[in-house]
Amino acid sequence: MREGEDIKDQRPIIGLTMGDPAGVGPEIIVKALQAPGLTRDARFVIHGANDILTLAADRLGIEPSWQRVPADNRDLAGRAGSDIVVRDHEHGGTLMNLPPEPSKRGGHASKAWVDAAVADAMLDSSDPCAIDAIVTAPINKEAWHLAGHKWPGHTELLAHRARARRTAMFFESLRLRVILATIHVPLMDLRNLLTIGSVFDPIDLGHQACLDLGIAAPRIAVAGLNPHAGESGLFGDEETRVIEPAIRMARDAGIDVHGPLPGDSVFREAIEGRWDLVVAMYHDQGLIPMKLAQHRSAVNWTVGLPFVRTSPDHGTAYDIAGTGKADPGSMEAAIRLATHLARHRVASRMKTEAGE
Amino acid sequence: MREGEDIKDQRPIIGLTMGDPAGVGPEIIVKALQAPGLTRDARFVIHGANDILTLAADRLGIEPSWQRVPADNRDLAGRAGSDIVVRDHEHGGTLMNLPPEPSKRGGHASKAWVDAAVADAMLDSSDPCAIDAIVTAPINKEAWHLAGHKWPGHTELLAHRARARRTAMFFESLRLRVILATIHVPLMDLRNLLTIGSVFDPIDLGHQACLDLGIAAPRIAVAGLNPHAGESGLFGDEETRVIEPAIRMARDAGIDVHGPLPGDSVFREAIEGRWDLVVAMYHDQGLIPMKLAQHRSAVNWTVGLPFVRTSPDHGTAYDIAGTGKADPGSMEAAIRLATHLARHRVASRMKTEAGE
Repeated sequence: MREGEDIKDQRPIIGLTMGDPAGVGPEIIVKALQAPGLTRDARFVIHGANDILTLAADRLGIEPSWQRVPADNRDLAGRAGSDIVVRDHEHGGTLMNLPPEPSKRGGHASKAWVDAAVADAMLDSSDPCAIDAIVTAPINKEAWHLAGHKWPGHTELLAHRARARRTAMFFESLRLRVILATIHVPLMDLRNLLTIGSVFDPIDLGHQACLDLGIAAPRIAVAGLNPHAGESGLFGDEETRVIEPAIRMARDAGIDVHGPLPGDSVFREAIEGRWDLVVAMYHDQGLIPMKLAQHRSAVNWTVGLPFVRTSPDHGTAYDIAGTGKADPGSMEAAIRLATHLARHRVASRMKTEAGE
Repeated sequence: MREGEDIKDQRPIIGLTMGDPAGVGPEIIVKALQAPGLTRDARFVIHGANDILTLAADRLGIEPSWQRVPADNRDLAGRAGSDIVVRDHEHGGTLMNLPPEPSKRGGHASKAWVDAAVADAMLDSSDPCAIDAIVTAPINKEAWHLAGHKWPGHTELLAHRARARRTAMFFESLRLRVILATIHVPLMDLRNLLTIGSVFDPIDLGHQACLDLGIAAPRIAVAGLNPHAGESGLFGDEETRVIEPAIRMARDAGIDVHGPLPGDSVFREAIEGRWDLVVAMYHDQGLIPMKLAQHRSAVNWTVGLPFVRTSPDHGTAYDIAGTGKADPGSMEAAIRLATHLARHRVASRMKTEAGE
């Protein structure tokens, strides 16, 4: 229970980060928060720039429905009156006029907003600034690099900040669920990166994630690395040397997992209902089918963190930023998934606090 | 013009190979040849086992409409009376009772039928046994290995037999076209296999293939190897070291080619109509989207051979062989594509023979 809160308000608090200020982040946040029912199930704290959000709302003809609070004001008790609070950060002048491209200032700001949200998520739940989940709007990695931040993406930064030993990217959609064994690495580095542990972890984390989603007995398939999953050792040995032992470990742990199966058939089988989750060995293997199967509403969920974190599965889309054309579908789905998962966590916590 | 032929008959002759005798090959050939209009546009020579084809037809309630000729009978002049001829091979007794699994006898026979068809395709067009195209039913690589044949698949065997210096696997469907830079190799071997030439060749061959399909100004995209196509060199250097120079070479040769583009977006763009062809760097990168986008009617076309060769994009499907459940859609599409391409070749040849 946060201090100063209405004792009856059990809605989780979802932290949103605005993403690259020159990308579509502000627009999709403003649009997505208009979706019916969101504030019935959750309250929101946006880390970002109030002037940019206000401009995005103006352009869309949407009345800003949030309360602005300076980012360094930790007394958020007053927010009880508003379902949406913008924690407005200072970055030495407005970021409104950044061109639609990666910039040092944009990278610095979008990184700072993520850091602030992670700090909130790591607070004790009694802290007035504590949040129950983070939904991140798209950042640009090149902008982060220009600002001197070497993280390849949100996922790696969040895992480091949260000191999480095992994390993985999980993609949730209506038709297909995918979890990745490796992420933002050169493909040829998989020779060294693919270990029994690095394949076991996403099976195990993915199994838990499916349970969290309410799937009672998850059926999990593991894709092979090589063509035809190595075709009995004819093309490559990673299947027999690494993937099969990881699958055996997971089966010994009671997980209903199968494979390695050929990449070019396992995703179709999953879409046809044979599998609840596919474990992909690398980025493109999992993301190519995900983006084909589910264009508008796939959500990226970082599993293994001490808090819930989701995000839309697209990038900054500089080319359409500010035009009003950005589709908020994936952002809305990311908010709904974070809300669903956070509600369960809040319910568990309240039971614990009540001594049950 | 083949000797003894009706001078008016300009229909190309399509050679079919029956594939693994215990797989779905016989069934999909018999079913596909029932499709309307096929024999209006082409004549067919099937290399295989007559008893198995007859059994397949019996089970399907189809009246065999072909003429049986012993395989070693090179006097095919009499076939003029039949649109479909089965060249019946001897393999020391019937193959009808093979179990639905890879076998040495099945591998030996299916390999021999491909060899026979290639020999026919390499004949001078005046030879009575000459064929204009080959459509291969699925073989099983493990069966070929059991029979002592080390070829990873049809494509490699055909390229060797035809002494073709540059070949590539091209996948044709209604929604998506893909050509592969590498095929049946361990994924981690791409470190050495991916060269400027091995990326340039499929761009060039794919461009010619699109022209053969009647696409006047093909728009070609090349996928990157690494996540996000390397994201400006952050993950892997193959994009800058190999793929970009190959694209520049192809552009210098007048080809409208773009990239390298991220794997997880380029296939969606192609399906949405942005690209006529995507060049994929490896098997799963191209086949995962192909099998998701086009389940029933994708065709595998080996480009760069001196003859036309197509095949369905599925395997032997031992689990449903003999049940009558096999879908002939991809085989029918393979026959139609081979017919379309062979008709153009026959027309060109007749023009040449007529001295035009």
